[in-house]
Amino acid sequence: MSERTLHPANPFDSDDLEGDKLHEECGVFGILGVADAANFVALGLHALQHRGQEAGGIVSYDPDEGFNSARRFGYVRDNFTNATLMRTLPGALAIGHVRYSTSGKKGAVIRDVQPFFGEFAMGGAAIAHNGNLTNAIQLRRELIERGSIFQSSSDSECIIHLMARSMGRTIPDRMKEALRQCEGAFSIVAMTRSKLIGVRDPMGVRPLVMGRLGDAMILASETCALDIIGAEFIREIEPGEMVVISEKGVESFRPFEPRRPQPCIFEYVYFSRPDSVLGGKSVYEVRREIGRQLAREAPVDADMVCPVPDSGTPAAIGYSQESGIPFEMGIVRNQYVGRTFIEPTEQIRNMGVRLKLNVNRALIRGKRVILIDDSIVRGTTSRKIREMILEAGAAEVHFRIASPPTVWPCFFGIDTPDREQLIAARMSETEIRDYLGVDSLNYISIDGLYKALGEENGRDPKAPAYYDAVFTGDYPIAPVDMIEKGFKLKPAAE
Amino acid sequence: MSERTLHPANPFDSDDLEGDKLHEECGVFGILGVADAANFVALGLHALQHRGQEAGGIVSYDPDEGFNSARRFGYVRDNFTNATLMRTLPGALAIGHVRYSTSGKKGAVIRDVQPFFGEFAMGGAAIAHNGNLTNAIQLRRELIERGSIFQSSSDSECIIHLMARSMGRTIPDRMKEALRQCEGAFSIVAMTRSKLIGVRDPMGVRPLVMGRLGDAMILASETCALDIIGAEFIREIEPGEMVVISEKGVESFRPFEPRRPQPCIFEYVYFSRPDSVLGGKSVYEVRREIGRQLAREAPVDADMVCPVPDSGTPAAIGYSQESGIPFEMGIVRNQYVGRTFIEPTEQIRNMGVRLKLNVNRALIRGKRVILIDDSIVRGTTSRKIREMILEAGAAEVHFRIASPPTVWPCFFGIDTPDREQLIAARMSETEIRDYLGVDSLNYISIDGLYKALGEENGRDPKAPAYYDAVFTGDYPIAPVDMIEKGFKLKPAAE
Amino acid sequence: MSERTLHPANPFDSDDLEGDKLHEECGVFGILGVADAANFVALGLHALQHRGQEAGGIVSYDPDEGFNSARRFGYVRDNFTNATLMRTLPGALAIGHVRYSTSGKKGAVIRDVQPFFGEFAMGGAAIAHNGNLTNAIQLRRELIERGSIFQSSSDSECIIHLMARSMGRTIPDRMKEALRQCEGAFSIVAMTRSKLIGVRDPMGVRPLVMGRLGDAMILASETCALDIIGAEFIREIEPGEMVVISEKGVESFRPFEPRRPQPCIFEYVYFSRPDSVLGGKSVYEVRREIGRQLAREAPVDADMVCPVPDSGTPAAIGYSQESGIPFEMGIVRNQYVGRTFIEPTEQIRNMGVRLKLNVNRALIRGKRVILIDDSIVRGTTSRKIREMILEAGAAEVHFRIASPPTVWPCFFGIDTPDREQLIAARMSETEIRDYLGVDSLNYISIDGLYKALGEENGRDPKAPAYYDAVFTGDYPIAPVDMIEKGFKLKPAAE
Amino acid sequence: MSERTLHPANPFDSDDLEGDKLHEECGVFGILGVADAANFVALGLHALQHRGQEAGGIVSYDPDEGFNSARRFGYVRDNFTNATLMRTLPGALAIGHVRYSTSGKKGAVIRDVQPFFGEFAMGGAAIAHNGNLTNAIQLRRELIERGSIFQSSSDSECIIHLMARSMGRTIPDRMKEALRQCEGAFSIVAMTRSKLIGVRDPMGVRPLVMGRLGDAMILASETCALDIIGAEFIREIEPGEMVVISEKGVESFRPFEPRRPQPCIFEYVYFSRPDSVLGGKSVYEVRREIGRQLAREAPVDADMVCPVPDSGTPAAIGYSQESGIPFEMGIVRNQYVGRTFIEPTEQIRNMGVRLKLNVNRALIRGKRVILIDDSIVRGTTSRKIREMILEAGAAEVHFRIASPPTVWPCFFGIDTPDREQLIAARMSETEIRDYLGVDSLNYISIDGLYKALGEENGRDPKAPAYYDAVFTGDYPIAPVDMIEKGFKLKPAAE
Repeated sequence: MSERTLHPANPFDSDDLEGDKLHEECGVFGILGVADAANFVALGLHALQHRGQEAGGIVSYDPDEGFNSARRFGYVRDNFTNATLMRTLPGALAIGHVRYSTSGKKGAVIRDVQPFFGEFAMGGAAIAHNGNLTNAIQLRRELIERGSIFQSSSDSECIIHLMARSMGRTIPDRMKEALRQCEGAFSIVAMTRSKLIGVRDPMGVRPLVMGRLGDAMILASETCALDIIGAEFIREIEPGEMVVISEKGVESFRPFEPRRPQPCIFEYVYFSRPDSVLGGKSVYEVRREIGRQLAREAPVDADMVCPVPDSGTPAAIGYSQESGIPFEMGIVRNQYVGRTFIEPTEQIRNMGVRLKLNVNRALIRGKRVILIDDSIVRGTTSRKIREMILEAGAAEVHFRIASPPTVWPCFFGIDTPDREQLIAARMSETEIRDYLGVDSLNYISIDGLYKALGEENGRDPKAPAYYDAVFTGDYPIAPVDMIEKGFKLKPAAE
Repeated sequence: MSERTLHPANPFDSDDLEGDKLHEECGVFGILGVADAANFVALGLHALQHRGQEAGGIVSYDPDEGFNSARRFGYVRDNFTNATLMRTLPGALAIGHVRYSTSGKKGAVIRDVQPFFGEFAMGGAAIAHNGNLTNAIQLRRELIERGSIFQSSSDSECIIHLMARSMGRTIPDRMKEALRQCEGAFSIVAMTRSKLIGVRDPMGVRPLVMGRLGDAMILASETCALDIIGAEFIREIEPGEMVVISEKGVESFRPFEPRRPQPCIFEYVYFSRPDSVLGGKSVYEVRREIGRQLAREAPVDADMVCPVPDSGTPAAIGYSQESGIPFEMGIVRNQYVGRTFIEPTEQIRNMGVRLKLNVNRALIRGKRVILIDDSIVRGTTSRKIREMILEAGAAEVHFRIASPPTVWPCFFGIDTPDREQLIAARMSETEIRDYLGVDSLNYISIDGLYKALGEENGRDPKAPAYYDAVFTGDYPIAPVDMIEKGFKLKPAAE
Repeated sequence: MSERTLHPANPFDSDDLEGDKLHEECGVFGILGVADAANFVALGLHALQHRGQEAGGIVSYDPDEGFNSARRFGYVRDNFTNATLMRTLPGALAIGHVRYSTSGKKGAVIRDVQPFFGEFAMGGAAIAHNGNLTNAIQLRRELIERGSIFQSSSDSECIIHLMARSMGRTIPDRMKEALRQCEGAFSIVAMTRSKLIGVRDPMGVRPLVMGRLGDAMILASETCALDIIGAEFIREIEPGEMVVISEKGVESFRPFEPRRPQPCIFEYVYFSRPDSVLGGKSVYEVRREIGRQLAREAPVDADMVCPVPDSGTPAAIGYSQESGIPFEMGIVRNQYVGRTFIEPTEQIRNMGVRLKLNVNRALIRGKRVILIDDSIVRGTTSRKIREMILEAGAAEVHFRIASPPTVWPCFFGIDTPDREQLIAARMSETEIRDYLGVDSLNYISIDGLYKALGEENGRDPKAPAYYDAVFTGDYPIAPVDMIEKGFKLKPAAE
Repeated sequence: MSERTLHPANPFDSDDLEGDKLHEECGVFGILGVADAANFVALGLHALQHRGQEAGGIVSYDPDEGFNSARRFGYVRDNFTNATLMRTLPGALAIGHVRYSTSGKKGAVIRDVQPFFGEFAMGGAAIAHNGNLTNAIQLRRELIERGSIFQSSSDSECIIHLMARSMGRTIPDRMKEALRQCEGAFSIVAMTRSKLIGVRDPMGVRPLVMGRLGDAMILASETCALDIIGAEFIREIEPGEMVVISEKGVESFRPFEPRRPQPCIFEYVYFSRPDSVLGGKSVYEVRREIGRQLAREAPVDADMVCPVPDSGTPAAIGYSQESGIPFEMGIVRNQYVGRTFIEPTEQIRNMGVRLKLNVNRALIRGKRVILIDDSIVRGTTSRKIREMILEAGAAEVHFRIASPPTVWPCFFGIDTPDREQLIAARMSETEIRDYLGVDSLNYISIDGLYKALGEENGRDPKAPAYYDAVFTGDYPIAPVDMIEKGFKLKPAAE
């Protein structure tokens, strides 16, 4: 059932610019052991806002006030800065979640916003999930047949129902039992009345880190969320690990069948913030190295290297450093990005892009420009940018893309369009170059990308070090729900 | 878990005047067979607003759009008149609910607002409930142990979980099975994708009527909700009856053990609207007859009969007609009743009452006044009214109450304060008269009340025709949840 | 210029029921000498809400905080009960205003909401006005030519500009000079940093009373606004009087040419609250006496006398008392009156009326009913009520109207439709009876109305004691603005 | 009088980061000759949002609908993207304004938001003003004495009152007469029913440009507002020029005494967007040249050059290019900047800065870092940034500032703190270096700044080419209002 909350439209719904990127679905944060824990969660979620802009939620627990929850559409800064609201979230233990709608369907519903809460025989628990279960439809069908009533259309809710039906005697036991039935990607932050729990699936697809601030312990999707509260990074939760944090300390469990880790490579390419450290690597430095590798793979003579702001900036710096061609701000971003304006009756060409980006006309005129972008999804924005740059009088435009062509959907927590909408699934590089109308176009090679990540020999096709299906079509786990819906895997011979 | 929705405070929370009345908990309405059914539900709920002012909800079903729902705090007129919102509720089948918070606890939660919805193996169903289950806590505890996850703190949600766990092959079958496990009062309006279902508990505590408008069939708590849409009254749903209305017509079932009907007597005294017809009797005419009976039981010489507006008006008319003493508007009601104003620093005596009522000073001065009120709960308002009337210069004030003393709580759907807050549970009539400071005070006798309802011999203590525990302490079903919480029944000998 | 504030639509805009009444434009209230004066103003305005529902405003003065103001669309109870807002209105001196839009034009503007404020060379002053200036357009034109810039489209703003341009050395002097240039009806409450000022035009068209609460002095449109704060009524401001209230006491001035007082008769018929005392007469008792006079002028044999609630109630009581025919509630009012609901696709007959009124069907069936209403303006609602009552099975319907036919517009502060919309300006009584489809119809005579007001010989056509142009077309002051716009006075011979 | 609109707090009020910058007060935009002109104004104001974030307003004119206006607190994107609102602003002629509060006083008032409107004898006019009148208090005092009533506390309103009192026969004539009485800085966009008018004060302190889109003509504060709608830049309005644009074309007037132009130098340093072209110079290229000049004036050996984002970026690129030291993103900006979060009970050091900026810890550790910022006002933010960078493990921190020390307030349209709050007015460079705790600190010299602007010989102290009082204390016009308030000019000998 859909309860349409008439919330302000998602500012990105009709946004050409962001609409032409892949979207991360979620960020999670939890903290135990500090007064007014929810205020720390609000700060942590603010630092993770890039992982999900549609909605956010916080659950806190206080011995006197019990569990309390607030879930809101919109940015963390617009909701969880309200003192009256924050006072309704007392306690020293709290978790939170930001999300980008997984399905992108019209009519978002506040009941779909995490964390989810369940009252069990031994007490309540709340859970926040980053990732995607590839067998969620099957699990949901079976649970409904046995009498579970779902509050939401979110796949993540399966976990809480599996826990409710478990015979486990503690909440961590029930969570282990529940997650063993789940397939796919999950980085989870959960809480009971006294424990903060973190879990990462055996492949470790989505990130999850642990930090400390004084006596308080923190779990967060990225290290930048530790930085904002001045917390110290301790370590990553390991693939397949469950940690249970209480006043007594940190316990570590390994509830799953072990398998080879494959963290998502797109976290390095686009999702994670450049100031985060992921898998021991500075995201910024990986991206700069991608730029350098791209300069080696696809050099071109030109007057300046310009990023498509802001995500192309580190790779552009690397390309400039490697090539010696000056780095310049050829495209300027309007920092007051926002909702869609009313389109005036007289046509404004590329209006969606103009709301966010403007070409630095005086700088560009008559120049040969190398534009660095992190990825091309549908190609619509790239084309508009090229058009604006040529209108501004650029002599040549060369596109360099800091990732390989995006040709397959992700079923592990990234919101990907259907294959037919991915430009690289339908066209060759030459066709894309002609479609975009640029003087040259080059993507970094898949091996080049792995090299920038420190894999000296590039990608090992037998045992790739990262989950990279959007580039390769190699799904480490068969996505059973999607196959049931008609998705065709890459032929084995391919 | 409480998710505190920061909705505007319930206008009645700190309202001295309404706070001194008993509160009905709910009104229900459903319609099948008309385009834009939700708009009719909105009108029906508006007519039933006196049964619950805190919140309202509507669920509709359309073959193309599926189930849709909207639940809001506040008045029907302030929410379900919004065209954008109403467009999200398409279809020819819809049900709705208005509620007064059963518990009156701080921090109302939108998830507690009905109708409730559940997705079952054979499709979805929504349910709206007026009444109170006396074994809800027990049922809830058992369901949680078996793995059901409750969305709300509402007792009514038990019904939908019992249905989810039922092995019945149709939704009506599951509803029958679920309700057989429920004890207490329930008048239910429910819907599937094609059926409108009405049920009334075997005692028939809360009302439920059926009507017709062209080809459409309607279920509603009171006949005034049929009048507002111009529908024709057909009949009441009988105690213990379940009706299943579909395109094929109306089917009637008797799923429960039969027992003697005992509709709630307070519906006549205060809850139902005077223009409704209940159990074949005009509510207005019953109240006028109560006034006449009161004039016979407790005559007094005076200059005028004045109602405490608006609920005392029909009885005051009856008292005037029987006694020959003129009916006058000695107290005038402010029709813009509203929230609590900021109390100015300088004390305004009886400010809460003054926001709603004003004494017609020019009329009252030097006169002997009979004041007719429907009931006295805590006595706080009655005392303030007396004070205002004496300040205005009345020579004498005589209170006549159109119901017997209220001495016991109701556990069948009326929000009653604890016994110690009921003035008549703590004081004799003489003590109350002295506490209020009036020249005389008389309640109608319990037999007089039954006579006004047409029972020529008054109340039959062996088999009372109505549920009247608030006056008598005779509970036809033992309230097990409350007994577990420590409630003491009247000693058998009393 | 119109700055369209997208405020919630005026709930009465499309309201058939209230739309068929004449509308008062304003109520005013001021208090000096009490802490948190604005809270008292809020209460006073709440009591005067019947005089204007569209918007309200309060200005307060505090030596430390200066003048502060808040103006809002909607009811007093919905705005001036907010503690945060009220804290922005500190001080022991405050005035307020409620208004019904004079023009009824779409797109109400917050800048048109009073009180108006002006900064003069000797300090600021705020002013709230009830009434209508009949030469406002002329004044405005002249002021604009001399360089005044109007903030609003309100005619009342002329007064503050005339004051700004005056050479008077004190604000009361400037106000006298300004008002001497104004023609028409005005009851004014104004304030400087230390004074509360009240003025009433020489005819005394609109009411204005003075009261006391402890050391504080109050000015208000009606006595019911004194009652709500428990203040004592002292006296009316006399026609042509200006009072200047300060810490030193009350000074009285007579700045205008004296003329015969003619208070508005419609205040007794409909505008003022029944619990107010006006010109020394209880409004309730005048209305009851109108009912008695009507029973004498237009008797009819019937089973019951029913008011059209709520405004017809006092006259119906009088008619019942005089005729001996029982008073009954044949029509019941929904106390949750509200905005316009979405009209369902299937036609609901008389939907607008049904939202507010319902016929007490069980009572009415087969009965001969006398319906008492205070006035008929367009006749649209009366017709719908008759229709509902006949549908409910009444045997006969007799309309008795507690005022003479309304045939002329008012230019002294009542919002009247154009003449062609007044049913009595277009039809004879017989034609109206047939149009409404009732068994009989009688208005009270103009002499009968004066008799009910204590004029034993009825109306003196040479020197009528009241302003009654809506019934008679006799305008004591030529409405120059309207004549310029094309309005035709009654021929002298008529 | 202050009417406190309870609007959401200015997001920058308690913002350490932005609070440590100087603030531009306003941006203006107007367009004539295109359907739905207001939609274009909304886009133009969005591009000018950096010039004022507190509030915005639009006035449009349509022959059928007259003048319409909407003024709102908050960002353009959050208000003027609402279709319902934009439909209330019809017509082919519209102007708009964004503002940063000049006074920064608590309790902003919607009446202070421009454009201002006045109805004159020959019709209405609206006016939007960027700049500051240095004799506004004197003008206001005189106008009030003559009977003008001010709507706002804005100094700009004087202009409309002077126009209202003028005897000029056309609005442009009245505007000329009014502006001749004004001293200070003003770039004005105004409109009548048929004309779009632009004026720039004789010094040309604030920018104003003219553009064309098809047949439509545009006036805007900066060229970036032409770019967003795809309009072509035609020319700047010249200092002392008034242009009157109508269907007949563009007329140019010179109503003022000519004087030497002195555009504001801070527009290049910080205010204008880098993609704008100002005085024929690319703002981006000027800033990059400032960075180069700074590298020549104050070289230092280091591992990387990092901007304080985003305003320091162009100068950092220039410094890197001149010095050969790599440009890196050592500080990352959170693009979801926002309101102030609740400060958790446990102290988070530098929380205000952390909401917006994060140090790229992995990159910085152990490195010698040159930080480039555009200016230092109070020094509070610079100190926090230094602290964060040292916590992250930087080996050395060298600050290079792309403007000379800010030591005097601006009275020509920049919101400057009092002198005692300007760190450079109280400390020498060495003291500031020690206060900030950095290894070295250098400002660009005033001559270096002029050189970067193309003045080969640096600043001519006799006739400086720019208005630069914040650096030099040389005010080309005596600020009479401020002198009356006690401001002391620099001694002549200094």
